[in-house]
This record gives sequence, structure tokens and C-alpha cells, in this order.
Amino acid sequence: MQVFNNARIACPGAETGPTPPSEPMAIATEDARIAWIGKVSDLPGRFASAPRSDLGGRLVTPGLIDCHTHVVFGGDRAREFEMRLEGASYEDIARAGGGILSSVRDTRAASEEALLDQALPRVDALLAEGVTTLEIKSGYGLEVETELKMLRVARRIARVRPVSVRTTWLAAHALPPEYAADRAAYLREVVIAGMDRAHAEGLVDAVDGFCEGIAFSPEEMDLVFGHAAGLGLPVKLHAEQLSDGGGAVLAARHGAISADHLEYLGDNGVAAMAASGTVAVLLPGAFYTLRETKLPPVAALRRAGVPIALATDCNPGTSPLTSLLLAMNMGATLFRITPSECLAGVTVNAARALGLDDRGAIRPGLRADLAVWDIARPAELSYRIGFNPLHARIVGGELV
Amino acid sequence: MQVFNNARIACPGAETGPTPPSEPMAIATEDARIAWIGKVSDLPGRFASAPRSDLGGRLVTPGLIDCHTHVVFGGDRAREFEMRLEGASYEDIARAGGGILSSVRDTRAASEEALLDQALPRVDALLAEGVTTLEIKSGYGLEVETELKMLRVARRIARVRPVSVRTTWLAAHALPPEYAADRAAYLREVVIAGMDRAHAEGLVDAVDGFCEGIAFSPEEMDLVFGHAAGLGLPVKLHAEQLSDGGGAVLAARHGAISADHLEYLGDNGVAAMAASGTVAVLLPGAFYTLRETKLPPVAALRRAGVPIALATDCNPGTSPLTSLLLAMNMGATLFRITPSECLAGVTVNAARALGLDDRGAIRPGLRADLAVWDIARPAELSYRIGFNPLHARIVGGELV
Ligand SMILES: [Zn+2]
Ligand SMILES: [Zn+2]
Repeated sequence: MQVFNNARIACPGAETGPTPPSEPMAIATEDARIAWIGKVSDLPGRFASAPRSDLGGRLVTPGLIDCHTHVVFGGDRAREFEMRLEGASYEDIARAGGGILSSVRDTRAASEEALLDQALPRVDALLAEGVTTLEIKSGYGLEVETELKMLRVARRIARVRPVSVRTTWLAAHALPPEYAADRAAYLREVVIAGMDRAHAEGLVDAVDGFCEGIAFSPEEMDLVFGHAAGLGLPVKLHAEQLSDGGGAVLAARHGAISADHLEYLGDNGVAAMAASGTVAVLLPGAFYTLRETKLPPVAALRRAGVPIALATDCNPGTSPLTSLLLAMNMGATLFRITPSECLAGVTVNAARALGLDDRGAIRPGLRADLAVWDIARPAELSYRIGFNPLHARIVGGELV
Repeated sequence: MQVFNNARIACPGAETGPTPPSEPMAIATEDARIAWIGKVSDLPGRFASAPRSDLGGRLVTPGLIDCHTHVVFGGDRAREFEMRLEGASYEDIARAGGGILSSVRDTRAASEEALLDQALPRVDALLAEGVTTLEIKSGYGLEVETELKMLRVARRIARVRPVSVRTTWLAAHALPPEYAADRAAYLREVVIAGMDRAHAEGLVDAVDGFCEGIAFSPEEMDLVFGHAAGLGLPVKLHAEQLSDGGGAVLAARHGAISADHLEYLGDNGVAAMAASGTVAVLLPGAFYTLRETKLPPVAALRRAGVPIALATDCNPGTSPLTSLLLAMNMGATLFRITPSECLAGVTVNAARALGLDDRGAIRPGLRADLAVWDIARPAELSYRIGFNPLHARIVGGELV
């Protein structure tokens, strides 16, 4: 039991919007949950003897949720980034061993311990900006053992850092060369057989895939999602990033919790997502890094009432981004999402994109995951670029 | 006297490029300068009894130099940012008191102490990423006393933080409404009379102006630069940001140390800058925030041998950016500058843009301003987005 006194509360999705009330509030926590919220002067007697922390009138938001990351991987792709800027072609880079397969090679070669050591600085950068829940995908193994190893590392992150981790099985990320001649065998022997193993070992919370001309077709993902449904696992999809391939419609048909990227999403995809309650996870870091010009259909998503989330997509190739605040600024600057939508996008809607209904807002009964900021107004979180005004995180009711 | 042992040195502009040598090096410092560099085993006897710090084989670059900032200002523009994203027009924002004049109002109203308090978190964010020299401009006073107040704050920053500050007189930033009917009077009574005061008080290291249709013409800046020359002050110019107005040619004619922004720079401007040795300071944070699409002529600048620097342009309106590493990533991603050019752009060329020949590289005789990084290769500084791998700064020979 603990009381956090003297807070200004900015809760996205609340009826009044994120405007902080003028009177300082108190938040009482119990068993890692929010037990009571109200005016400091109204604190119920049962919290009278609880330890108190004074938040100094600071702004408090829900803890931030990064609902789409590939934060566990081996090696980095700095040399490839450099080669491309020095004029190398994609062929040059492939010849030099670059591209996603270089991450696959480095991830396969790394021990579980080494993968954890490499992931932690990235995780720490996210936590330093108020992240309290983090999704982590597999997808750089493309063979069962390495995919499982990635998810074991993801689970270990939640044990060595004060953060909730949600794991995602993404063996359907790319087709490895050894299966080039037999895609069906890859789906059967790695994606589906590995999913069974991951599920049996308690390593997986959701199933994802990359639905694109260069990766897997809607028909292939249909098979994968069907298997996930049999295991009771929620599904999500990398869809419509480079073309409109019908991924979002497929995802919606499977009741996906989210469809992610969506630059090329068409009206039928928007309508399908609205009907299925699928969250649109926008990833401006990848849009920025790839110098995309096709914007996701934000106005259509708004009109249709599709919840919009924002995430880092932290990955070594197309979004080496470890700042969720910067993803918010990019969402605003590049995608024209309002600051209020940006905050909802990394809290309430990000929780929903992970299928979690116990966090992402500030009200009694929810997890006491909070971020305390040295700012006057919530819009400052999206406005500044490369600035971290975090004062403290509260995770499961504990100030960390 | 101090010895920094076990460093891998990456010095941009060195003949061998920024590739670190395979053998660990030692750097000996004396009186805030680099006194000796060589293999650890070759350390001269006179440094034998000096205190030693082990850098653990980490990569060492020159301390970073942010050569263009407006880091001292009152208030912020988060509300304006929010209004614009919520669909407000420029007129709506002006009616609500937004735009540059809101920063002028807030800066005029703030005490010197308040301006310092507000600037320090921004300065600290820059220093946390390895910045050891920082340029700071006036320009939100647009009246003599407030312009002087801004530069006094800039000087105080160098006293309360371990960083070198170079100050710039930028009264020719915008025309305040009270002088709308008499531009010549503004130049005479504020820009020039104030410059004399600032110079007499030792507050100013260089003179700058905003040369653009919405600000001051080349003819007006010619007058200002002529006066600066009489005081022996170097000049620089915000030029060709929104149109090709002949600013760079004017700057070059005055032997300017830099011309900044330059998206609309034409061939004649490039040639003039090459002839005068004027540094091109590119500001990708403003380009990004304004969603500009016209790229600065990087290939032409390279061909002509114009040195390219990168800076944050940290300011409340068009670039609320407090990360020089992010300016490097944006330089690479948006402007297609190579990682090696990015590093030169925030070290050796940034020093030159400030008229400083005592820093920006790692060799005996230069100031011992260094940044120590937890990275394998210098390209990682540009590759990552929103990640800070700084291990420590060394400022004037002291580990801070
Ligand atoms: Zn992804
Ligand atoms: Zn500027």
C-alpha cells in the first residue's frame, strides 16, 4: 500500500481529455494496482498510514507502452547503413552479407546471455523515457531453436528489469534461404511446429507475421493464424507497409488485436479493422528511416473509429529507434497525429493493441504503472525532439 | 597533467579517416590541452607519474560541437504545436498569441535567472550526448536589453556547466511589430546600437542574421555585417532556408565563417562559399519539423569542397531538438550525408563554423575536449535513433 501525493493527472481516453485538473490529486496503490484516486484532502482513512511519496505537483500519465518492438537481436547494421550512404547498391550490401539475413546470422550465433546483454541497453533507453510495458517479437532466428531463444531472452528481460514484457512469435518474418525451394515446409516445420513448442514452454503471448510480397501471402498467414487460434493465441500482422496486399482484411477476419505499419491501407482494410476492433499500430520510425512518402490513412482511421497506437518498431534494419517519445514526435510531425492522439497511442490504445485491459489508463483496478513528468502540459511529450522530461516511473505501485 | 589510457581514437578529418587503430592508444593532457598521443607502451617518461584513467578500449572522438543553437529562450511553443495539429490556421495561432512573437514576449518577460533555469535542461541534454562546445544566439529579445540579457545567460551557462559557449548577436532575427513602419530605425537602434553594447560588455563572439523575405534583405544584412567588421566580429548568416535570396553570396563576400540552412542554395552560392572558405551548416531538425522537401545541395557542396557542418538549431518554433546525435542521424537519413561526414560535421567542421582552430580534432596542441563512447564503430553514432552511447566527456583535460 502506497500513496502518491500531489500529482496532476493526465489520462488519455478520459472523457475530459488529457487536461490536468487544477487541484493536486493523490493516487493510492495496493497489490500493484491503483486502489483509489481523488483529491489529496479526500484520501480515505484506510490509506492514512501508508507510505507517501510527494510527486511535487508533477504531471502523471499512464506508464508508456511500446506495443511493437524487435528489441532482441544479435549484431547491428551500422556498417550496412554506412555502405548505403556511401553509395553501395542493395546487391553490394547483400554480397557483403548485409540485410535481414545478417541479423539472422548474428542472432543465431549469439548465446542467450549475449542476446540479453545486447538488448538491455536498448530496453534501458526505453524505460528511461517512462515505458512500463514492452512487446518483444522473435523473428531473427527463422529456425525453431533460435526463435525460442529470442523469446526466452524476452522473458528474462522482464525478470531483470522493472517492466512487463509481452512476447510475440514472429517466425513468419522472412523466408530463410534454406527453405527457398519449399515455403510450405518452412511454415510447417518452423512457423507452426515452433509455435507449438513456444506455446508449450509458455514463451508466447501472441502470433505475428510479415504479410508482404517479399515475405508471406495472406493465404500463408491464414494458415498460421488458424493454427494460433487453435492454441488460443491472439494474432496481429505487419500489413500494408510497402503495398496493399490485403493483410489488414485478413487480420480483421481473424479478429487480430492489431495490424501494424499500414501506409498502404485502403478503405476496405479500414472498414474491416473498424468492424473487428483491430488497433492500427503506426510505426513512424520505419517510415522515416525508409524515407517513405505514402502516409498511412490517418483521417480515414479516425473517421472509422479505429484506435490508433504508435510504437518504435525498434529493429536493426528499418527502425533502429529506441525512443518512444521520438515515435510520438514523429507521429505528430510526419503523420499529423495530434499530441492527444499520440499520448493515447502509447498508453490506452497500445494496451489494447496488446490485448491488455488492465493498463494504459489511470483508474482504480488497473495496474499502478505510471510515468511522472517534469512538464506543464501533456503536449510537451510530442512537441520536443530528443528531450526526456521523465522524473520517475511507477511500476506495479513501486517507484523505480 | 593526466593520461587517458586504452583508447581507440576516431578522428574525423585525419588522413586515414575515422577508422580506429587496432592498438590501444594513450592521450596525455596538460593545461587543458592534448600534450601527446601514441601507443600506450610509448608513453614518454614525463607523463609517468600523471594520474591515469583507463578508457577500457572505448572509442574516443573529439568532443561534439553544436555550432548553431537558440537554446536560451522563454516559454515554449507546445500549445502552438498542438493547435496546428488540431487544424488551427496560422491566423488562429497568431490570434492566440503564437509564433516567434510569443517566444519574444516570454523571453522579454523572463528574468535572467528564469532564462538560465529554463535553458539548463536543454543544455544538459546536449552535454549528456558528448557536446563540449555550444554556440548560443540571441534573437528573441528584438530590443537591446533583452538581447543582452540572453547573451548574459549564455555566458553564465559556461560558468555553471563544463562546456565552452560561443555567443552570437542575432538581433536581426525578426522585425518586431513596434518597428514595422521603420525598418531602418530597427537596424540602427537595436541591431547596431545593441551590437556595440554587447561588444563593449564582452558578450558577443560573432554576428548573425536571418536573411529571408520574411526577415531581412541582403542589403540590410550588408549594413549589419559592415558594422560587425568594424568591431572585428566574425559574421554568419541564416540563408536560403525558404528561398534563394542571395544570402550565401552576401555572406561569402563578407568572409562569413558559416552560412546556415541552405536548402535553396544555388550554384552561385556554392561557388561563392567555396571561394571564401565559408562552412555550410545544415540543420536537418528544422527541415524535418517544417516537413520541407527541398534538400540542400549536398553533392554540389561536396564537389566544391565546401566543409559541411551539422547542428541542432535548437529553438522553440522550428526545431525543438536537443539531440546532436539525432541531428547526425537526420543528416544521414534525410540529407544523405555519410556517417563519416556527419562526424566531421559535429567536430572539425563545426569548430571551423565557429572560427575555432583549437578544437574539433584529436592532436597535440588542441584543447583536450573529448567524447568517450560505448560503441565499436563511429558510424553507430549516426545509425541509431534516440540512443545515447556516451560513456564520458573529457572537457579541458578533465573527465566530467
Ligand atoms: Zn516490426
Ligand atoms: Zn537558427
